[in-house]
This record gives sequence, C-alpha cells and structure tokens, in this order.
Amino acid sequence: MANDIVVLDATLRDGGLINNHYFDDDFVKKIYKMNVAAGTDCMEFGYRASKEIFSPEKYGKWKFSSDDDIRKIVGSNDTKLKLSIMVDADKCDYKNDICEKSDSPVDIIRVSMYQHQLSEAIKIIENSYKKGYKVTCNIMAISKCSLDQVKAMITELAKTPVSVIYIVDSFGAFYPDNIKRYMECYHENIGAADKEIGIHIHNNQQCAFANTLIGLSEGAKWLDATVYGMGRGAGNCHLESLFAYLKEDRYRIDPVLDFIQDEMIRDRQINAEWGYNTYYLITGAANRHPKEAIQATKNKCERFLEFKKRIEGQEC
Amino acid sequence: MANDIVVLDATLRDGGLINNHYFDDDFVKKIYKMNVAAGTDCMEFGYRASKEIFSPEKYGKWKFSSDDDIRKIVGSNDTKLKLSIMVDADKCDYKNDICEKSDSPVDIIRVSMYQHQLSEAIKIIENSYKKGYKVTCNIMAISKCSLDQVKAMITELAKTPVSVIYIVDSFGAFYPDNIKRYMECYHENIGAADKEIGIHIHNNQQCAFANTLIGLSEGAKWLDATVYGMGRGAGNCHLESLFAYLKEDRYRIDPVLDFIQDEMIRDRQINAEWGYNTYYLITGAANRHPKEAIQATKNKCERFLEFKKRIEGQEC
Repeated sequence: MANDIVVLDATLRDGGLINNHYFDDDFVKKIYKMNVAAGTDCMEFGYRASKEIFSPEKYGKWKFSSDDDIRKIVGSNDTKLKLSIMVDADKCDYKNDICEKSDSPVDIIRVSMYQHQLSEAIKIIENSYKKGYKVTCNIMAISKCSLDQVKAMITELAKTPVSVIYIVDSFGAFYPDNIKRYMECYHENIGAADKEIGIHIHNNQQCAFANTLIGLSEGAKWLDATVYGMGRGAGNCHLESLFAYLKEDRYRIDPVLDFIQDEMIRDRQINAEWGYNTYYLITGAANRHPKEAIQATKNKCERFLEFKKRIEGQEC
Repeated sequence: MANDIVVLDATLRDGGLINNHYFDDDFVKKIYKMNVAAGTDCMEFGYRASKEIFSPEKYGKWKFSSDDDIRKIVGSNDTKLKLSIMVDADKCDYKNDICEKSDSPVDIIRVSMYQHQLSEAIKIIENSYKKGYKVTCNIMAISKCSLDQVKAMITELAKTPVSVIYIVDSFGAFYPDNIKRYMECYHENIGAADKEIGIHIHNNQQCAFANTLIGLSEGAKWLDATVYGMGRGAGNCHLESLFAYLKEDRYRIDPVLDFIQDEMIRDRQINAEWGYNTYYLITGAANRHPKEAIQATKNKCERFLEFKKRIEGQEC
C-alpha cells in the first residue's frame, strides 16, 4: 500500500452544503480532535466565500471559514493534521480574503472550478502559491468533460504551481471504467510535471468508495472522504470505509466510529439528510447535477418514471 | 458491451432470507411480470430446501419453490425469461425433490456450496445435469478461501457438467482488487473447459454494484442482482443500477423503477429491513459472516467499538 497518500476529511465543507454551513463550535472541535486521533492527513474546514456574493446573514460561518474562526478551533494546531479551505472560482475574493500563509493557520488552498473557469482558477492558484500555500485544483463535474477537454485543462494546469489536480465526480456519474480512463488521461497530460492526482467521488450510484479505491490503484495520491459520507445529495466516500480498507498503522478507524455514533446518529444534531436513493441513481446515471434529486428527495412524492422523463428531457 | 451476459434477478431467493421466504402470490406474479417486461435474462424463485430439514410450518413456500407453486405464477412461461431455483448442498433432497427437466418449469438449477461441501455439490451438479437442467455452482464465502483453495475447487468443478461457476462474496468483504485477482484465478483454472463465470456480491461495504461491474469487465458473464438490493443484511447489487449502466436495448429499467415504488417503498408490504449500515461495514471489512451485524441492526443499541472488538475477538 502506498505510504505517500493523503486522506482528506471534507465533512465540514461538503457536509456544509446541506446545512448551509451551520456547524456549532462544539461539533467542529470534536471533528478536529477526531481527525487528529484518527491520523487523517488533512481536514477541510469549509469554503472561504466572498461576503459580497454570499450574505453572512444567510450562511453559517464555515461558508467563510475565516482564519480567526479556524484558530478558535485549532489554536496553534500543534499536530500533524494539515488544514485546508476551499475557494470556488468566481465566488471568492481571494486577493483580499486570503492572507500570507505565514499569518494563517491554513496550510492548503483548494481551488474548485468548472471547465469554463480555468483562467480564473489559474489566477487564484498562482496568487495563493505566491502567498506561501500548497494549492490544489479540483475540477468539478469532470464527467461532463470529454477526454480532449480534460487534456486541454490538464496541459494548462501542469504549467502552474498547483500541487494536486483532482478528478471531482460531482454528479456521481462515473463507473470504475470511467475512473480508469480519466486517471490515465490525467497521468498522460501531467507528464513530467511534479503534480499529484486527487479523487473526490459522490455516491449517487453507490460507487463512491469503490471508485475511490479504483483511483488509488490507478495512482491517485489524494483521497477525499467525509465522515459517514456526509455531503451533498447522495453524499461522498465514507471516511470510515477508507480507514477500514487502508488498515495502516497511521490511520485509526475507532475515533471515526465513535464520532459517527455520538455526533451523527445518536442525537442527529445535524439537521440534514443525505445518502443514496433512487432519485440519485437516476440523475447519476444520466450524468446530471443532482439538484432535482435533492428536491425530489425532500418532497418524497414524485414518481420515479416521471422524474426520469423530466430529467432526460432537459438540456445538459 | 458484451451481448452474451445473463442478468439474474435473485430478489425472491436472497430477499427470502430476510422474510423467511414469505412472499404472497400477488407480489411474486408482479415481480415475474416486471422481469419479463424489463428483459431480465433469468429470475430465481427461491430455494428448493428439504422439508425434512426445514419445516414448512416455519417457512414460506419459496423456501421450497415446488414446481407446482412456480407453475401457479408463470403458467407455461411462454416468455424469454429463464427460471432458476437454488439448492444448498447438504440442505436439499435433490434425488427426490428435483424431477426431470421435461416435467418442470425450471430451467436452471443453481447449486450453492461452501468449500467443504464440494463433493456433495458435485453430486448434485451431475444429478441435475443428467435430468436435463443447465446447472451453476455458487461458491459461497469465497473471501474465506485462499487462491490455492480456489484453484483446487475450480479444477474439480471444471471436470463436471456445470455451466457457470460463481464468485459469491457472501460477506461483502471484497474490494475491486480482490475481484480482479479471484476472476483471474477462476479464468486460469477453468482453462479450456467450457464454463462461464458468475458474480454475486453483497453490499456490506457499499461495493456490490461497483464490484459487479469489475467482474463484468474482467469477463464475468452471469451477473446477479436484486430489486432495490433486497437481500440478507446489507443487501445485494441493485438490479436497477445494473440496468441503468447496461443501457442496452434488451434491458428496460422503467418496469423496475415502477416496481420499487409501488411494491417496495409505497406500501412497504415486505416486512423486512436491509441495506448498508456501519455494523455491516465492520463485519465486511473483517471478512466475517454478517449474522452479528444483522442482530445489532435489529437491536440498534450496541456501540460500534464494542461490536468491532467483539467481532475481532472471535475465531474465524
């Protein structure tokens, strides 16, 4: 087993998408401690979104994940756990909201982008790198990009100071074969550049964990997961599944199991629902954004066949 | 995509394990019609268990799946859908309970066995073949067998008139890499014999569907699934997921979606629970039978960590 992998817990960030980023400090402190105890390599706090675009009246503080708020949780973070935040291209004010690394508890800036946002993403990558951060680029909805389009993007990103380029299967549309092909395409076009590959998979068709393992066996070094799969729609690869598989001395599943039982099941203090259902299978198999499936899951009344016809009738 | 695959719906048989094989005729007729409409290749009715070993007072009729009971559902089965039943080695009275194929609506006898039951299974295979049936052999708990043990079994089975030899991951313990290795071992030891490979995977670690796809890409021709994943413990590969993936003209997902909504969700007329949870992850990752996880799921109170320690402390 690779000793050089990075397991990243994205619970607060991806899970924040289903509770508008309202997590109380007690919960956040507990998940931080859990990750330290479990030997997780990196923990993501949330987005650093622009307050011009998103009102702090309408979102919890982890939509903005200020350095001060992170410091209230981690103090000086005198641990091996690295800390990341995510910035969405076109939805952040990176010039003003990201300070020099030497003044921040954050180690890694993860830049998320759709295909059409490449040039903006590269600006953020270069700016964040100059400020001293390690930087990743998370290409969302990669299942909507042809291999030629992927080739063009990776070729550009390979010239930047980004450290990691991610396959993000936002729609849970990928099967194991797709993961293999896209991993191959990433490797080929990264070429001799010093970049690693990351993988972030959604569970719309119940393939999140298995596809993450396929990514690992095809050379992905950065593996995203969330506790109990918490995340938008059908959720993500479960962190505890990954630790059960990795069985390495440096990861410990026990703190994750305790956290699930005490913080995510017992009190269900998180007012949020996620996980596989048939609506997600339909949007995943159709390679579509899960937003209609999220709505149908809330309403719980639409016939699957009507839903499927509605989804298939829409433009991509 | 392979045109020569066989998709087998095992809902009544594997699902029967969680409701003691009590399905009413209305439900069974509907699932039969659904499979005909969906283009499923084969439908399994249930076990043909010995009435000496299992009391008909304590089990529904699909524990015994008599030819007469099957005929009440399918009439002369004037469709393309093939029909199978399963017989468990050591738990059936095949000499008396399986008649000549020409007198039965059943097309395929599936013989399930654990490793130590090989010689008994071979007797049933030979007997059923002589009576005119196509025969498969389903090697259960294959994750407990080393590759050397698998080699020995396949070598023996390759000499019999069995048509299909299955990988059955009864414990949901396998990851994609395991499937690849075991498929390779099956292929090698079947050699030039005219046998196909089948795959039947449980969902304890949420890998059932993805592992079935891995099996397919490694040359498995017979793919087991159940509607909505209904089956023991964490359940099986979902039939609807498979049809969404296959997207072939000969399969139609729509009747399956309607059946799920009307028969498995709306009225929840099946008094049974199944599906992934953390207890199943723990037994799956430990390569153990899920029986303790089934019990813990019913009780819903045992701490995950105590459960894990208890499981790990047991002898295999």
